[in-house]
Amino acid sequence: MEGNQEPVRFGIMGCARIARKICRAIKLAPNATLHAIASRSLQKAEAFATKNGLNEAISVKIYGTYIELLDDPDVDAVYMPLPTSLHVEWAVLAAFKKKHLLLEKPTALDSAQLDQILKACDINGVQFMDGTMWYHHPRTAKIHQIISDSTIFGHICSVCCASSFLADPEFLDSNIRINPECDALGALGDLGWYCIGLILWVVNYKMPTYVTALPEATLNSKGVILGCNASFHWEEEPKTNATFYRSFLSHVSMDLTVCGSNGSVRLHDQAIPYQESSASFFLTTGVKCVDVQTEGSVEPVEVVVESQLPQEGLMVQEFARLVKGVKNSERWCDRRWGEISRKTQLGLDAVRQSIELGFKPVFMQQD
Amino acid sequence: MEGNQEPVRFGIMGCARIARKICRAIKLAPNATLHAIASRSLQKAEAFATKNGLNEAISVKIYGTYIELLDDPDVDAVYMPLPTSLHVEWAVLAAFKKKHLLLEKPTALDSAQLDQILKACDINGVQFMDGTMWYHHPRTAKIHQIISDSTIFGHICSVCCASSFLADPEFLDSNIRINPECDALGALGDLGWYCIGLILWVVNYKMPTYVTALPEATLNSKGVILGCNASFHWEEEPKTNATFYRSFLSHVSMDLTVCGSNGSVRLHDQAIPYQESSASFFLTTGVKCVDVQTEGSVEPVEVVVESQLPQEGLMVQEFARLVKGVKNSERWCDRRWGEISRKTQLGLDAVRQSIELGFKPVFMQQD
Repeated sequence: MEGNQEPVRFGIMGCARIARKICRAIKLAPNATLHAIASRSLQKAEAFATKNGLNEAISVKIYGTYIELLDDPDVDAVYMPLPTSLHVEWAVLAAFKKKHLLLEKPTALDSAQLDQILKACDINGVQFMDGTMWYHHPRTAKIHQIISDSTIFGHICSVCCASSFLADPEFLDSNIRINPECDALGALGDLGWYCIGLILWVVNYKMPTYVTALPEATLNSKGVILGCNASFHWEEEPKTNATFYRSFLSHVSMDLTVCGSNGSVRLHDQAIPYQESSASFFLTTGVKCVDVQTEGSVEPVEVVVESQLPQEGLMVQEFARLVKGVKNSERWCDRRWGEISRKTQLGLDAVRQSIELGFKPVFMQQD
Repeated sequence: MEGNQEPVRFGIMGCARIARKICRAIKLAPNATLHAIASRSLQKAEAFATKNGLNEAISVKIYGTYIELLDDPDVDAVYMPLPTSLHVEWAVLAAFKKKHLLLEKPTALDSAQLDQILKACDINGVQFMDGTMWYHHPRTAKIHQIISDSTIFGHICSVCCASSFLADPEFLDSNIRINPECDALGALGDLGWYCIGLILWVVNYKMPTYVTALPEATLNSKGVILGCNASFHWEEEPKTNATFYRSFLSHVSMDLTVCGSNGSVRLHDQAIPYQESSASFFLTTGVKCVDVQTEGSVEPVEVVVESQLPQEGLMVQEFARLVKGVKNSERWCDRRWGEISRKTQLGLDAVRQSIELGFKPVFMQQD
């Protein structure tokens, strides 16, 4: 089993700002190495390489077209931060070129497109994962352990999350994330991906009975969503509901509140922890029938979780671990990551449909 | 102006649990004194007096009927924590007996009833205030100063609040707050009062364009609301929206998040601060177009506000100050407090109507 200890060799397709973060993450992950980058032009790719110090200590191949990177036999896996509308074309091609695929979110414009991508990965035996970083932070597992423990937490009653930042005029004018030809999902695709993924994660990926957008989504002149609220509803007893808010027009927020019948968890740096080396959340539990009018409040406990790498490093490490298992024929591709992406994308589809239907509930197919 | 320094003499009508807290608050407020208590039976009133040490240091009159207390000429002001359905009858009578009125919330079953109460107070020249304590905490003024400062905060984009506690089986079986003959508004009246009052306070009491309950309110077998979500919408640019959640079926929460275009404020002990001597909130401001994918989060600043009395003491003190001004013919009654209660009650009416209409938007009359 020669080569077992070799790191997974990544190619980065596209030089978006987010690529800088993943570039660093690949350097940090002990089982990954950056082999090549590609942009639409050699000049852009070279500028990215210089800015990220890729010409210095390590030698990275630089391509002026995406196809050259996909044709490089030494690239094991591709990280793809292209505009969403280009995902289906390039992700499918990457899979057929036998490249394992770390695909930036939102994964596609809709679940039909994502299905094409997942099918291509399946056929070609390559590992799929989307670029959601918070899944990989140890805080995430710790919270899930607590909210799943019925003694501590009871059953889940409600989930509330918010994801926003205030876009400046330049962003609103020209950023790809609000250009219908690049990212037609706007704030729903970009920030909504966090909220929907979070909500489904809380409930162990049980799809809601129905989803409804709340009145008054804000669209730009090209019909791209700049801000919207929505709610998810599970009708089965005990009933659960989730509301969320995402906007390019409001000050930065990354809030998650999960209320159970016997406890609650809160955090305000959900998508990106304040610190790289540790992250915390606030827990209250077991307050018995407090009469909020006559008794005092109970101060929550801060639970701190250490992290050996920043969460994007952990993501790359986990992806590389799976890729290596497949490469070494030690295991099949882990389809769980594709399933998570697919359910998140189905949630996005439902919210968009609800907005298009004038904020009517959209009933979801159950598992 | 003899008697100017005399404290305002309170009578407490009804020995609900909340009365214990106000009993202590009257003792703490330097300009108030407890003169009498009344219950439906002398035995109940005496038990309350013993439990609250009213027979010891101070001499408090004890009445076995409400009317005796209202006929006592030495009672200046009445604190009334009766079940909501009894408010209109007894509050109107108290006003006609020339008693200033500190009325527990929800003030009435609907705004038509509250209007009768406010009219009776007006006719009789007595001061009205509802028993919402958080208005009087200095933290409240501090937050309002910040969110009203457009340099720090920009404009208000969204408000999110939650108020809940987990009722035990005994409460769900027999508490007056879920008995349709006592408190037909259930969690909407009790906990919803906080949320609606908060939201309107954030926007300076500008009534929303419309209000809508979110699907799936939880009712008990008698039709009383145990839990519901709703949203408020202001259509005028820049658009604002508010969502809230209140429930007797979920672990305790008292959350408020206000997001402006340039800042955000968060607190989790809104209705009752964790400590009596000080309270805090968390502020972030001026984070410029942070790209949440590529930059770090910005840790909020904790702003601590000291308080000389617990908030219920400050409420009694402020009410007594107004009463004294009226008693001494130094000023008219301050009608602002009645206006605040009325707008909150109109918000409650709208949410209830939306639930009754099957979660349809209810459009509000504008000022």
